[in-house]
Amino acid sequence: MHRLVNASRSLLTSTLHNQSTDMALVEQFDEYRSRMNERILGSDNLIIKRLFNLDTNTYAEGALNSKTKEMIGLACSMVLRCDDCVKYHLGKCHELGVTEAEMQEIFSIATIIGGTIVIPHLRRAVEYWDELQKGTE
Amino acid sequence: MHRLVNASRSLLTSTLHNQSTDMALVEQFDEYRSRMNERILGSDNLIIKRLFNLDTNTYAEGALNSKTKEMIGLACSMVLRCDDCVKYHLGKCHELGVTEAEMQEIFSIATIIGGTIVIPHLRRAVEYWDELQKGTE
Amino acid sequence: MHRLVNASRSLLTSTLHNQSTDMALVEQFDEYRSRMNERILGSDNLIIKRLFNLDTNTYAEGALNSKTKEMIGLACSMVLRCDDCVKYHLGKCHELGVTEAEMQEIFSIATIIGGTIVIPHLRRAVEYWDELQKGTE
Amino acid sequence: MHRLVNASRSLLTSTLHNQSTDMALVEQFDEYRSRMNERILGSDNLIIKRLFNLDTNTYAEGALNSKTKEMIGLACSMVLRCDDCVKYHLGKCHELGVTEAEMQEIFSIATIIGGTIVIPHLRRAVEYWDELQKGTE
Amino acid sequence: MHRLVNASRSLLTSTLHNQSTDMALVEQFDEYRSRMNERILGSDNLIIKRLFNLDTNTYAEGALNSKTKEMIGLACSMVLRCDDCVKYHLGKCHELGVTEAEMQEIFSIATIIGGTIVIPHLRRAVEYWDELQKGTE
Amino acid sequence: MHRLVNASRSLLTSTLHNQSTDMALVEQFDEYRSRMNERILGSDNLIIKRLFNLDTNTYAEGALNSKTKEMIGLACSMVLRCDDCVKYHLGKCHELGVTEAEMQEIFSIATIIGGTIVIPHLRRAVEYWDELQKGTE
Repeated sequence: MHRLVNASRSLLTSTLHNQSTDMALVEQFDEYRSRMNERILGSDNLIIKRLFNLDTNTYAEGALNSKTKEMIGLACSMVLRCDDCVKYHLGKCHELGVTEAEMQEIFSIATIIGGTIVIPHLRRAVEYWDELQKGTE
Repeated sequence: MHRLVNASRSLLTSTLHNQSTDMALVEQFDEYRSRMNERILGSDNLIIKRLFNLDTNTYAEGALNSKTKEMIGLACSMVLRCDDCVKYHLGKCHELGVTEAEMQEIFSIATIIGGTIVIPHLRRAVEYWDELQKGTE
Repeated sequence: MHRLVNASRSLLTSTLHNQSTDMALVEQFDEYRSRMNERILGSDNLIIKRLFNLDTNTYAEGALNSKTKEMIGLACSMVLRCDDCVKYHLGKCHELGVTEAEMQEIFSIATIIGGTIVIPHLRRAVEYWDELQKGTE
Repeated sequence: MHRLVNASRSLLTSTLHNQSTDMALVEQFDEYRSRMNERILGSDNLIIKRLFNLDTNTYAEGALNSKTKEMIGLACSMVLRCDDCVKYHLGKCHELGVTEAEMQEIFSIATIIGGTIVIPHLRRAVEYWDELQKGTE
Repeated sequence: MHRLVNASRSLLTSTLHNQSTDMALVEQFDEYRSRMNERILGSDNLIIKRLFNLDTNTYAEGALNSKTKEMIGLACSMVLRCDDCVKYHLGKCHELGVTEAEMQEIFSIATIIGGTIVIPHLRRAVEYWDELQKGTE
Repeated sequence: MHRLVNASRSLLTSTLHNQSTDMALVEQFDEYRSRMNERILGSDNLIIKRLFNLDTNTYAEGALNSKTKEMIGLACSMVLRCDDCVKYHLGKCHELGVTEAEMQEIFSIATIIGGTIVIPHLRRAVEYWDELQKGTE
């Protein structure tokens, strides 16, 4: 019984692949990402720590603004077909005010460059983007 | 309580990763794909709409028949390691009468070209192909 | 009701993506992999059978020992971003006594070579490695 | 002897892999690309023609300006490690006035995302970018 | 002088990248491939030898005929963007009587699946295919 | 005569791909790599500079020795099909005393993981490895 309850509880926070209610998709992604990043940065791995640090600096305001950089990061993640990377950059684009029309054009560029093989990732990107938009209505 | 019920309901239709009962794998894939394609084609994105259209035309009967084209599409999806693309083309191959013996040879070509890195995708392809075959027994 | 019970039962053994209790992640991976490998090797596909056989021989003791070979296999799986391949080689590395410090260095090499796109796979690798380590405490 | 002398002379001025004098790199790329595109568009392949057309439309001014779109296209080409695609988008970025400082930031994003595996492509991108800049001094 | 002569000798047998006269592209590819395959099969590497052997068997007549298998191999090589693999399968497709119309459809499938990133490889594939066709006129 | 003139003309702009006499392959690679690295590190790009630095540190002696790390780097480069990365790590492996027998096993692992698509890169790796070995006889 205890296991059943545990299972049910974990269900509430689990990633039901391709499914979500309310902001579940976004919250789950953020929770897992934060928890594991903490675990990774907690280990004694200087190379990885510095790479995480470099990664943050890469998207800072510079000759290009952060919004443009995040849009570039998003498109790269789509053509490389990395769903979690796509989610991360979608979140950042959302925060930085990328509009629906701009997002559609990023989707177009990534899908034309990467081909129909990108479409399953486009589906999940659109679903996640919709969740992000709903969260701010 | 409302959330528990929601969670349970979503469970019934959710993709329990790598698991299925009856035709669940196939139905779930089809449902999610249709729903998100509708969402994507409902947005005002002419580039994506035209690419979807081109995609459909690409597999139409021509100098090569649709069956050969779908087999090519399947093998390409396997070497590119795109599970959803593999499922889609497996469905089409099944519809167009690809036999078990033919399918095994496509599996061989894709795995030899793409290497052992393809094997996890081969496992999921075989599982899905078996579901499709069961559905028509 | 029957479906609900079924759903609950499958839940207990299902891969709740990115989640695990106890050794669930490891057991689930092993169970699915064994079951599907059996299914694949049970079909009449000589090419695939021979490739599976070659794959096993590739990691046998030779001029390089198996531990070194499994570490190479792991790093290759990470840069190719194949989660299931990563899990398999993590299991083997664990069996062959790869230490935490050695594993951190493999993680560094793979992430520096493959870039930040590898990080989501690093997260899942670290989670799985932690599960393997817990299992032997 | 005549052949030897000719060959020797050509050596002195030839493109020894990744080498060029004056605008040779740029001119060679443009010449080959134009010639083969003409050949491709001259064949009776409606799918490819339409894809070429879609490709052009994708980078047109819209919610995002063409400069931003070409920068996105460049970064995607770098992480996908396609030297010819990189050259094409570098040419476009040059035409549209991307500055040295902006280009360095695109290089950073692409190399951090794609990892050290991108570096050989970064070398060739920098060489080509330098040629483009020299051409306009 | 010694260096110049050496350089000249290598020139006479060199791969003129993207360039050819008559059947030069095809001959050069075949010569290099044969020479290096011989070198590889001459080393004491049983794994690689068996893989080469498996590779040959994969494309033998079976439930699918060799022509279909080579067309599948070609499309996979294109989406994986491996120019040498593309050349090899183009040669085989040519031998097995793939028509211009069939080839155009394979080109379409591969380019739609793999996206515009495939186009530079399409250019080189078309150039090589033209050389093969010229050789048999 | 006409053919000679044509050939010479194409030579003037040709890329000498995949060919070398004496240590030309190795020298050319080293020269271009050094020159462009200098150019890249000479630009005001802190992100790239730090990544180059991290890259160097990644292969330093640690829980794993440098030889093991370079072998891992080589195998990763092969499965990612990056010829220049392969050459770089082959050079390092040569310096650090990797034997012919060990190298053959790395070649096996990389080719089995990455599939026949790796073979063209294996050919070039073997050619370069042979050049390195000749240089020290």
